[in-house]
Amino acid sequence: MASPEIERLIALLAKLPGLGPRSARRAALYLLKRRESVMAPLVRALDETAASVAACSLCGNLDSRDPCAVCTDPRRDPSQICVVEEVADLWALERAGVFLGRYHVLGGVLSALEGMGPEDLNIAGLVARAGEPATREVILALSATVDGQTTAHYIAERLAGAGVAVTRLAHGVPVGGELDYLDDGTLSAALKARRPAAGP
Amino acid sequence: MASPEIERLIALLAKLPGLGPRSARRAALYLLKRRESVMAPLVRALDETAASVAACSLCGNLDSRDPCAVCTDPRRDPSQICVVEEVADLWALERAGVFLGRYHVLGGVLSALEGMGPEDLNIAGLVARAGEPATREVILALSATVDGQTTAHYIAERLAGAGVAVTRLAHGVPVGGELDYLDDGTLSAALKARRPAAGP
Repeated sequence: MASPEIERLIALLAKLPGLGPRSARRAALYLLKRRESVMAPLVRALDETAASVAACSLCGNLDSRDPCAVCTDPRRDPSQICVVEEVADLWALERAGVFLGRYHVLGGVLSALEGMGPEDLNIAGLVARAGEPATREVILALSATVDGQTTAHYIAERLAGAGVAVTRLAHGVPVGGELDYLDDGTLSAALKARRPAAGP
Repeated sequence: MASPEIERLIALLAKLPGLGPRSARRAALYLLKRRESVMAPLVRALDETAASVAACSLCGNLDSRDPCAVCTDPRRDPSQICVVEEVADLWALERAGVFLGRYHVLGGVLSALEGMGPEDLNIAGLVARAGEPATREVILALSATVDGQTTAHYIAERLAGAGVAVTRLAHGVPVGGELDYLDDGTLSAALKARRPAAGP
């Protein structure tokens, strides 16, 4: 097929999530046809990111400074800590722009299958932060999966004596979602947590 | 959102075919979590490929040597030249392993809309190669689109006096294809080009 150098590049590109072997081939050709405009800047960006970006020692967010921009932003409320599984979840909440407190990235969830125990997650750091006087609420924004909810339970128990409120995201009908397509668990949760409807 | 370095990396990854803004974000996080195992080897592979791989001066294939491995392979028949639009098409034919001659990569097709004229394609090189005594047949393996067929027509005319057979790929029902789902053009071409059925 292609030369060994190209095959190696394709094999590495195919490891990226979202790219299969076929699209990795297309991506490699795309790069080789645009060496100056895309390939060289991509190499520079990868180098710079690898050199400058690291996990924030407070919250686990990825940033070029430590503590990260969220932890050092004086406009953000230090009394609320939103616990997320991964940096991707932190980014999703930041894109939505609905949370103005600080974050704590666990780095995964407890999972017996994948051998993830409490010591593999950044839970000790969370317990320490929850014990600081400024902290009033820990919001568990974890996946509504079995592993996510197990992790939420475990954290809630660990924080039981810390004197902070521990809350979790609401379950219910996604905004824009049709009832017809919802699973039974979501329907049941939405019904149990029903709220007074706004009057006319 | 993320730091400027990460945002720049995401923007560059999002340019790759097959990756949108969302999957580029996931890919960037994937890379940042696997610096030693994926990110560093990817940078090296990009560097090496950019440094060593170039278009073959004979056929336009991408390889780390010039002329490329296909052009210099003594087991390949120099009397047949298969004309393809892009290197990806050459790779597709090589994967199928059904063609044992040599190739010629045009670098695109004639397209009035995209402003691609004959001088933008490697047609002069093809005419020169067709005029060599060893060449007996030029096989046009171009897309069955309007632009592809216009290009095939143009090349056939340019090669009219070169004393070589000019052929094109057969049109017909794709192997494994169901008649029900085929377009009228393919059905009509397949009917016109019908062949005697093998007896029992």
